[in-house]
Amino acid sequence: MTPILFLMIDSSVHNQDLYYTTRFLAPDQFLYLRSGDEEILMVPEMELGRARKESRISDIRTTADYRVIEKLKQYGRDHAQSMVVSELLHDEGVTEVAVPHNFPVFLADELRSDGFKITPVRSPIRKLRSVKTREEIEWIKKSQICCEAAMQSAIDLIRRTGIRRGVLIDPGSDQPLASEHVRTVIERTLIDCGCESEGTIVAGGKDAADPHNAGRGELRVDKSIVIDIFPRLKMERYYADMTRTVARGSPSQALSEMYDAVLDAQTAALGVVRTGVSGEEVHDAACGVFEDAGYRELFIHSTGHGVGLDVHEEPHIGVGGEMLKAGNVITIEPGLYDPEIGGIRIEDLVVVTKSGCENLTTIGKGFLV
Amino acid sequence: MTPILFLMIDSSVHNQDLYYTTRFLAPDQFLYLRSGDEEILMVPEMELGRARKESRISDIRTTADYRVIEKLKQYGRDHAQSMVVSELLHDEGVTEVAVPHNFPVFLADELRSDGFKITPVRSPIRKLRSVKTREEIEWIKKSQICCEAAMQSAIDLIRRTGIRRGVLIDPGSDQPLASEHVRTVIERTLIDCGCESEGTIVAGGKDAADPHNAGRGELRVDKSIVIDIFPRLKMERYYADMTRTVARGSPSQALSEMYDAVLDAQTAALGVVRTGVSGEEVHDAACGVFEDAGYRELFIHSTGHGVGLDVHEEPHIGVGGEMLKAGNVITIEPGLYDPEIGGIRIEDLVVVTKSGCENLTTIGKGFLV
Repeated sequence: MTPILFLMIDSSVHNQDLYYTTRFLAPDQFLYLRSGDEEILMVPEMELGRARKESRISDIRTTADYRVIEKLKQYGRDHAQSMVVSELLHDEGVTEVAVPHNFPVFLADELRSDGFKITPVRSPIRKLRSVKTREEIEWIKKSQICCEAAMQSAIDLIRRTGIRRGVLIDPGSDQPLASEHVRTVIERTLIDCGCESEGTIVAGGKDAADPHNAGRGELRVDKSIVIDIFPRLKMERYYADMTRTVARGSPSQALSEMYDAVLDAQTAALGVVRTGVSGEEVHDAACGVFEDAGYRELFIHSTGHGVGLDVHEEPHIGVGGEMLKAGNVITIEPGLYDPEIGGIRIEDLVVVTKSGCENLTTIGKGFLV
Repeated sequence: MTPILFLMIDSSVHNQDLYYTTRFLAPDQFLYLRSGDEEILMVPEMELGRARKESRISDIRTTADYRVIEKLKQYGRDHAQSMVVSELLHDEGVTEVAVPHNFPVFLADELRSDGFKITPVRSPIRKLRSVKTREEIEWIKKSQICCEAAMQSAIDLIRRTGIRRGVLIDPGSDQPLASEHVRTVIERTLIDCGCESEGTIVAGGKDAADPHNAGRGELRVDKSIVIDIFPRLKMERYYADMTRTVARGSPSQALSEMYDAVLDAQTAALGVVRTGVSGEEVHDAACGVFEDAGYRELFIHSTGHGVGLDVHEEPHIGVGGEMLKAGNVITIEPGLYDPEIGGIRIEDLVVVTKSGCENLTTIGKGFLV
């Protein structure tokens, strides 16, 4: 599926297409070229040893082979890079090449002015990545087990809190329980499980009404607390993703009704997931429930996304979302956000199958804890 | 210094120029346009509330203002994005605009075919970012304090090990001490300190001879152990960076001599750092020491780099490295890597001043622990 001539230049820490293709993890930029049946890696000299050991590519060259230091001295850093790439393409007899959409425009312009035809294409690798192998699904399950352990540690902590003047009290310290402390408990659980995490959300009250607000400060009784955890296994690099929303005390009827609507929307969306249904149809199922309940305007994001080497990847479960395939791993996470009342989101991680889906999320969905 | 017309579209989690400029942290792509004295942010609708609260831009629009959903349905995701951008530029009367080098070529091509002139420029913001404000230096110091606490926890653990059949033995478990365990101790210290970290290196023996090998498995006596820690403060988003190399037992004379050469190279490089000296001159100082000691070929990376919102940023302390300015925060980290003997790297984090530098690194540099 990859075009016969395909060029990527990036850091594989950020660019998961590049990591997926090469299985070489490097913080600095390196080059991957597919030319016919050949695959070439070009790395900084300091990465040569590791690239030989870790990457799946056998033809590995270094920028030193193309005298990068001389070029740096003579032409400066930007031009040195494009000159090295230009020479490599020339050596390989390549005159036109496909690049991903996000290929840097400066480098594309330089190569074009050297006479190469550069054609941006929608990443064929992103498409490949969206259907997971059995091994990848095992890694995601392993990540999800850690994610659930972390979620359980957070919910258990919140469940054990006391209440004083409307604020949740940490039973350990007898001090108000803050979002930050719950987040630390989550992150320690993840680290002990071999995961790293960034951006964990523990958002209560008004913070929860912004879907990407990470949350800070004291957590309060009667308010919803959105807990969204998306760890990555450090060795295997695969993500998991889940969200639960909980409350202590007696949430208002308005909030409880929102919770039930989200749960219904999620159930409806989960119910239509299977091979051959589009991501947009799954999203429509969630939207339909909200529409009927009079909440449609409070649902301001898509219903889900693929999960793998990126926490957000294909397929898209929203408007324009593509046809689902067996082996997609996706989230189903409808939510409602009311600036006055608060926010609710419930998110499961599922593997798409021919006849439905396998839900990797086992923690219950009770609102009150 | 920013061009009068400047356009960025990216996620500010990955693109620190965008975060620096807007102070709005978002995992999904959003747009920043500077047009004369005006600054415009365009975010997905779900981010509007948070963008209003958190960003420093007052003119905030959403893709919904440009009917993105309609466009998605009619033209698909790729074209919908460029059409929205096109409309915004048109509304603002912009016909030509500068973009950073790494602006996506697909989007540039689409805008060009809509008649806009798109000129990639070396990011002016990256240059701004390289000179830190007093506040930024405080954040980096705070991050470095956590980094040192983590380094100390690792060194203390290694110092307390027993030795059995050439392997370091964890005094707690009486089991062999693995790189992974030391890394967990480091990461727990960092989390408790409000930091996150990715890619921490604890590499012993042959692993240490590859500068980016994270290290795994049992640590051995008489071998060098490279510990490289680069945490980021979760709230403030600023990095620190430091490396120490330690050994237990009786390292070979060859390894000890390498250690001394690295320490000398670092001392020499630190000695020339001040405003008005170039990054290349600092690198040359380190190279000179290695040259004289007959080690030049084993020094396969640059001497250092700027540290801030990115762990690697300007200025570059290597070939082609620019003139240093007061307020640059840089690492000085020469290293030697011999596949047979092992690796040594010593890294300090310093603030460039008019007359020299302020070293933010206080942990000693003894090899044997």
